[in-house]
Amino acid sequence: MKIVIAPDSFKENLTSMEVATEIEAGLRRVWPKARCVKIPMADGGEGTVQSLVDATGGEFVECMVTAPLGERVKAVYGLLGGGRTAVMEMAAASGLPLVPRDRRNPLLATSYGTGEMLLHALRGGAREIIIGIGGSATNDGGAGMAQALGVRFIDAAGNPITELLGGGMLERVARIDMAGLQPEVRRSTIHVACDVTNPLCGPSGASHVYGKQKGATAEMIETLDRNLAHLAAIVKRDLGIDVVRRPGAGAAGGMGAALIAFTGATLKRGVELVVEATRLEKHMQGATLAITGEGRVDFQTAFGKTPSGVATAARRHGVPVIAIGGGLADDAAGVFAHGIDGLEAATPNAMELDVAIRKSRQYLQDAGERVARLIAIGQRMARKSAADGARKAASKQPKKKAGAPAAKARAKVRPKAQPRTASRASSKTARSRSASAARAARR
Amino acid sequence: MKIVIAPDSFKENLTSMEVATEIEAGLRRVWPKARCVKIPMADGGEGTVQSLVDATGGEFVECMVTAPLGERVKAVYGLLGGGRTAVMEMAAASGLPLVPRDRRNPLLATSYGTGEMLLHALRGGAREIIIGIGGSATNDGGAGMAQALGVRFIDAAGNPITELLGGGMLERVARIDMAGLQPEVRRSTIHVACDVTNPLCGPSGASHVYGKQKGATAEMIETLDRNLAHLAAIVKRDLGIDVVRRPGAGAAGGMGAALIAFTGATLKRGVELVVEATRLEKHMQGATLAITGEGRVDFQTAFGKTPSGVATAARRHGVPVIAIGGGLADDAAGVFAHGIDGLEAATPNAMELDVAIRKSRQYLQDAGERVARLIAIGQRMARKSAADGARKAASKQPKKKAGAPAAKARAKVRPKAQPRTASRASSKTARSRSASAARAARR
Repeated sequence: MKIVIAPDSFKENLTSMEVATEIEAGLRRVWPKARCVKIPMADGGEGTVQSLVDATGGEFVECMVTAPLGERVKAVYGLLGGGRTAVMEMAAASGLPLVPRDRRNPLLATSYGTGEMLLHALRGGAREIIIGIGGSATNDGGAGMAQALGVRFIDAAGNPITELLGGGMLERVARIDMAGLQPEVRRSTIHVACDVTNPLCGPSGASHVYGKQKGATAEMIETLDRNLAHLAAIVKRDLGIDVVRRPGAGAAGGMGAALIAFTGATLKRGVELVVEATRLEKHMQGATLAITGEGRVDFQTAFGKTPSGVATAARRHGVPVIAIGGGLADDAAGVFAHGIDGLEAATPNAMELDVAIRKSRQYLQDAGERVARLIAIGQRMARKSAADGARKAASKQPKKKAGAPAAKARAKVRPKAQPRTASRASSKTARSRSASAARAARR
Repeated sequence: MKIVIAPDSFKENLTSMEVATEIEAGLRRVWPKARCVKIPMADGGEGTVQSLVDATGGEFVECMVTAPLGERVKAVYGLLGGGRTAVMEMAAASGLPLVPRDRRNPLLATSYGTGEMLLHALRGGAREIIIGIGGSATNDGGAGMAQALGVRFIDAAGNPITELLGGGMLERVARIDMAGLQPEVRRSTIHVACDVTNPLCGPSGASHVYGKQKGATAEMIETLDRNLAHLAAIVKRDLGIDVVRRPGAGAAGGMGAALIAFTGATLKRGVELVVEATRLEKHMQGATLAITGEGRVDFQTAFGKTPSGVATAARRHGVPVIAIGGGLADDAAGVFAHGIDGLEAATPNAMELDVAIRKSRQYLQDAGERVARLIAIGQRMARKSAADGARKAASKQPKKKAGAPAAKARAKVRPKAQPRTASRASSKTARSRSASAARAARR
């Protein structure tokens, strides 16, 4: 029996690999000999680098980059096993946590550090980049990143802008010069993990939807929105790429748009990228069961979260998939209509959240065991139902002929005497029996 | 598919029938056509009367009795469907809640009311009594009850004691006269639901172990213990029954001993009595699955609690049994070693206990659905494994002979041509295949 265990991490508590390891331990209490394949998963957000490094036997890489307000900080990204693909989170270089709350200012904050981190990975030999762009402190339309990659922004006087661009300075850009773009960027493929579909500008654009949480006032938001539109117009004119209405262009203060325009990146749901990077589909081949999970399963879980991606991959191979949640929200049963076949909660009782978190390893093991035991009951029921069906079919024979002819019949199916007859007969009838057992079980 | 749903009540929240009803609703989301047989269960403690009345289509009966300190109170017991058997809790007539905390005094408290309630049921036509004796306020060795049933206690001067006997007055008893015992008592069978095994006297006897919670001081406990020993000696001399060391004699302030001595009652684990009264074993016949439950499942659940009794009955019929707890304690997985095959928690997340209780109906439904879905996954896996096994067996035939002979073989098993051969062959091989599928599934 091959079981694919592919959970997300439990935020601020357990990594995906730790979650998978505990679930495996629980399953093994019931199925000690099962082949468990642990694939730590993620959805492109927090924990994605850790999961992909764990999943591929990769490593962590450190580099010094420019933080949103200009300080130098250490950023960490991952190099997947094989070294061809790097995985990073924009937040590591340009994230909100890098700026103290009282200094947050998207007019000034620059995504330059993200460009440096990208370049570091590319110069280190990566040819493919997976980048998650959640949690940024910036609203600079990715101009800072572009500068780091060698793009030159020229002002109205024809002079290159040498300052690091922030969202408040984009109106100064009059022309874009792509000639200096680092060659490593041209040679690379960049995949952006992006689950939001906001356009670059307007009421559902980057500035209006996400500006406030980055420290923008209402007035600043108007400026930021206008500046992004200005930048997009220049990009359209000089690069021939229209990013304004592209879904996801407004992610991360316009970083979505910049990665499309300046690096030729494509945007995808994070979990899809992780499914590809972990070769989850390949692991599903020949699997009997898939188990996924996340810290809290709710109705949204079925849409774009890790379990939904695992469910999609599992379904394609006809593998039933179960989600184990640290906890289940009241609407969690909604996921059954969207590809999840079974659910289980790790937290087994009313308790304080911090107790549930503290004991989450034991609770995950126990939940794994409970899942395995309920499945084992189902297996036992199906086998009993099939056996009962067979017995019933056998007992339906005419009674008066039950003696000698039955013995004769038994002789006929002796493997040595007529192997093909026996196995053909049984395989055919077993299949139709299994179908009727299935009907019986559904009753 | 027949499913027996036999849970305990969730204390101070849902009756057993309510718990069973919600579980059924959850199961039906997955198995709309399942035949669900709801058997509200109990363990002889709180909720037992309600459960047995619900389980048998019985009714509640009210009677006026004497409370432990002499007031008149209304007590309620149950008459099971059919009217032959009454079920009652001693606490309804002689329970601690009937005495305000500051007036609790086991020297005075009498079990007289319990005797009145017994007699009420017997005079109403009951021939069999199931009585749970938990939670009493008394330590009178059941002397008060005996008085109500017509037993006369004679003092040293040869005069019958007319006061209602409390635990502090037993040293006045010099002789017991059974002549006045009501004839209904002699004609009846009394079953005592009793899960404790304390002897009547001594350090693990009624007074020392339970006296304090009934309001006894250390000094009173000595008196009570001495008095019970005195009463037991008279019982032994006059009735020829030695109750001192009988397990359970010390239950309910010596009520265990009194029911044995004065009414010929037998003591049994509460859940066993409930299993018998509900004819649970009969309902298990032909069942595919049994589901039980209680408010909180812990390791103790496997010993004498409702789920353990249901598990015993289910096992005897080869029916897998699952316990759904309102919550699961950290040591709940211990029950797997003691007859429970599967476990599920209703409470699906960290939360306040009162929220869990308030939402317990929804949570029970959802838990029922989760259980059914996990079992259904197991059924699907077993059928797939059987089908794969059959396919593999079929493909193992020598390739060069796969053409015409196979067609010939297929012709041979056509039901009309050779019905017995076909069905014999298939039933035999299907059974061995199901065994090998079982082995495969365990891997």
